[in-house]
Amino acid sequence: MTRVLTITGARLTDGRVGGLRALDGTITALGPEVRAEPGDEHLDASGLTLVPPLVNGHTHAAMTLLRGYGDDLALMEWLQTRIWPAEARLTPEHVYWGTRLAALEMIRSGTLRCWDMYFHATEVARACADAGLRAAVSQVILGIPDAPAEARPEAAEDGLARLAGYGPLITPCLGPHAIYTVGPDALRSIAEVSDRHDAPVHIHLAETAGEVDDCVREHGLRPVPYLDALGLITERSVLAHGVHLDDAELEIVAARGATLVTCPVSNMKLSVGGAFRYPAARAAGCAVGIGTDGAASNNSLDLLQDVKVLSLLQKHTTGDPSVLPAADAWAIATGATAPRLGATPLEVGHPADLLLLDLDGPEVIPAPLDAGLVYSATGATVDTAIVDGRVLMRGRVIEGEDEVRARAAEAAAVVRGEH
Amino acid sequence: MTRVLTITGARLTDGRVGGLRALDGTITALGPEVRAEPGDEHLDASGLTLVPPLVNGHTHAAMTLLRGYGDDLALMEWLQTRIWPAEARLTPEHVYWGTRLAALEMIRSGTLRCWDMYFHATEVARACADAGLRAAVSQVILGIPDAPAEARPEAAEDGLARLAGYGPLITPCLGPHAIYTVGPDALRSIAEVSDRHDAPVHIHLAETAGEVDDCVREHGLRPVPYLDALGLITERSVLAHGVHLDDAELEIVAARGATLVTCPVSNMKLSVGGAFRYPAARAAGCAVGIGTDGAASNNSLDLLQDVKVLSLLQKHTTGDPSVLPAADAWAIATGATAPRLGATPLEVGHPADLLLLDLDGPEVIPAPLDAGLVYSATGATVDTAIVDGRVLMRGRVIEGEDEVRARAAEAAAVVRGEH
Repeated sequence: MTRVLTITGARLTDGRVGGLRALDGTITALGPEVRAEPGDEHLDASGLTLVPPLVNGHTHAAMTLLRGYGDDLALMEWLQTRIWPAEARLTPEHVYWGTRLAALEMIRSGTLRCWDMYFHATEVARACADAGLRAAVSQVILGIPDAPAEARPEAAEDGLARLAGYGPLITPCLGPHAIYTVGPDALRSIAEVSDRHDAPVHIHLAETAGEVDDCVREHGLRPVPYLDALGLITERSVLAHGVHLDDAELEIVAARGATLVTCPVSNMKLSVGGAFRYPAARAAGCAVGIGTDGAASNNSLDLLQDVKVLSLLQKHTTGDPSVLPAADAWAIATGATAPRLGATPLEVGHPADLLLLDLDGPEVIPAPLDAGLVYSATGATVDTAIVDGRVLMRGRVIEGEDEVRARAAEAAAVVRGEH
Repeated sequence: MTRVLTITGARLTDGRVGGLRALDGTITALGPEVRAEPGDEHLDASGLTLVPPLVNGHTHAAMTLLRGYGDDLALMEWLQTRIWPAEARLTPEHVYWGTRLAALEMIRSGTLRCWDMYFHATEVARACADAGLRAAVSQVILGIPDAPAEARPEAAEDGLARLAGYGPLITPCLGPHAIYTVGPDALRSIAEVSDRHDAPVHIHLAETAGEVDDCVREHGLRPVPYLDALGLITERSVLAHGVHLDDAELEIVAARGATLVTCPVSNMKLSVGGAFRYPAARAAGCAVGIGTDGAASNNSLDLLQDVKVLSLLQKHTTGDPSVLPAADAWAIATGATAPRLGATPLEVGHPADLLLLDLDGPEVIPAPLDAGLVYSATGATVDTAIVDGRVLMRGRVIEGEDEVRARAAEAAAVVRGEH
């Protein structure tokens, strides 16, 4: 039986009032002329604004369990005394509930597709599928001696296969952690697996200057040419952070069609040094997306806050208030500037993934739409969230929220060693 | 008749459950033992966290009317083509409704005291008084030829007198705009008026490097020693921005007991160059507060977002993630680190100004209190706002909100030249 969803009465981004109709999760009509028919699932969106959903290009969803656990510490102290001991206590069930908590937060703040990398990736996939969220899920791969069995490079292809069974919303990916935790032979074999299965590769890259220096010292190349020589800069590559890239590296990224995901809040909070070189990346023609990083280093998954910080940081760094205007920032937040992140534009023939926002609050009026979204709105303006034509949230209510919060809080206490 | 307000069942910041009792707007009891008595106005605050309100140390409240009007322009183009023409159309009534809109936004995001500087200041005072908000209100004073009559330096003392009639929540202040718009003779006379009336002086200072260079060239002194020689660096001085201050200037500010108000979001959005030197200001012993600046250059009055950006910018600028930890950032947001801003600590004998926050949302759990407030919460977590023992908002509902939004939207359209 065909699922029909009809939305009417919404404000469209062109200022008209209208809606859309979706059959089995695909938009079949969009505009002022859409009317509900008997038997449709029908949402009256009067007073709400219809926009595409946001894409979080880099996160570790289950790290919501570690939100606020060891803030304001130096990086190595934070990792050694807090994050790594806690992660050593993580069970698959913890990851499931931490990811469910993240999914609640993402849905409530308008992110309906995320790129995740973490331990126990099948639990990430199961949690996102249960929450109804689109997710590109990768098992973190570590080439270090004490890596868990499932995270070892030789397990990468099996990991990809295990992630295939979680339904159409979940895209299995490969997740080599970084060039300083996975060696060149393993990276080359991951590139081959990616090529064989046409699977995206999600990797941290050039987050700190030290990483670049080490790469040059050990391999005689900066990170992008190093990875390129191993076959890992391709249109399947999602490169998180990319703070310390020079012009030549940006040109390689653009030429290969790889995607850069900037994480401005995490980069500032961890003091990685410098800022993502957005004007240079744009000039080179790179595909650019935005990510929150994990909630342990942000401490939020609200992309509407982060995209404001992205724009602020670019204006601050360049000394030019006209850099990254609101319309461009909004395009980044929705993934429109990074096609390989899997954005879902509001167009006939595309998936019925969408948000209905309440932009009439005193926090947003009387700003025009683009500026209102980027500089004034937060995730709290999201009233309704829909993925694949299914309503995940309506009037800020998500079914099953209380259980998720309770189970995630229990998991967090155990992981933090409080129980 | 005595007004009695009793709050019970709240989470206190020390982790206990309790509440407070206020008689005629003053806290008379605080802690787990507080019980409601017959006849009290009684709020059951179960599940909510009781915290002091936030203090916005620098804003132009009525500029909500210009929110999103000319974003992403170079500074002079923005001022010349958007802000100044719009301000030339401002009537007292526009300022009233723009300030009421700002008051809605401030109350909804937990700011219950603000330091304002704008045209038609008596309308600012009337609007804040009608909204029930504490406000230090200053008429902007301009020493330029086409300044409105009420904004001329010779009208400063009269302006102060006119602001005296708006009730106990409104503190009349003097508001010389800046050292580049008010000459030395006028500044000296304002210092004398301030001294005579014990009135605070609210001024923009050292927002850009150009302002500092011009000051040195014209007066042979950097901004702080220049103002100090005119008698305007005192414990009554509230110095907004203070981005470009050197160590000697910070020492003068500290020695005089003046207050610095940093506006990180506005500074980044307008690309003023550099960042407020928080570690140096702290080392010098300066009183430091935070402000949003006007909504035209932010574009939000939500201090819980801005205090996160403050912390992020300091970590980014210094390269040290341990700078400005959450507890210190929270102290700045509540004005605890700048006594002359008029913070209202939650203590017996102090005004019954307070917030009840819902920190159980999936955006905030399971963070500890300080980190949750600074890095995860936004103004949307504010459930209840109380000033002087009077409930301004409960369950996010503010009486009369619809009229304010409608009247402010009308005013905005006129001021922007859309009508």
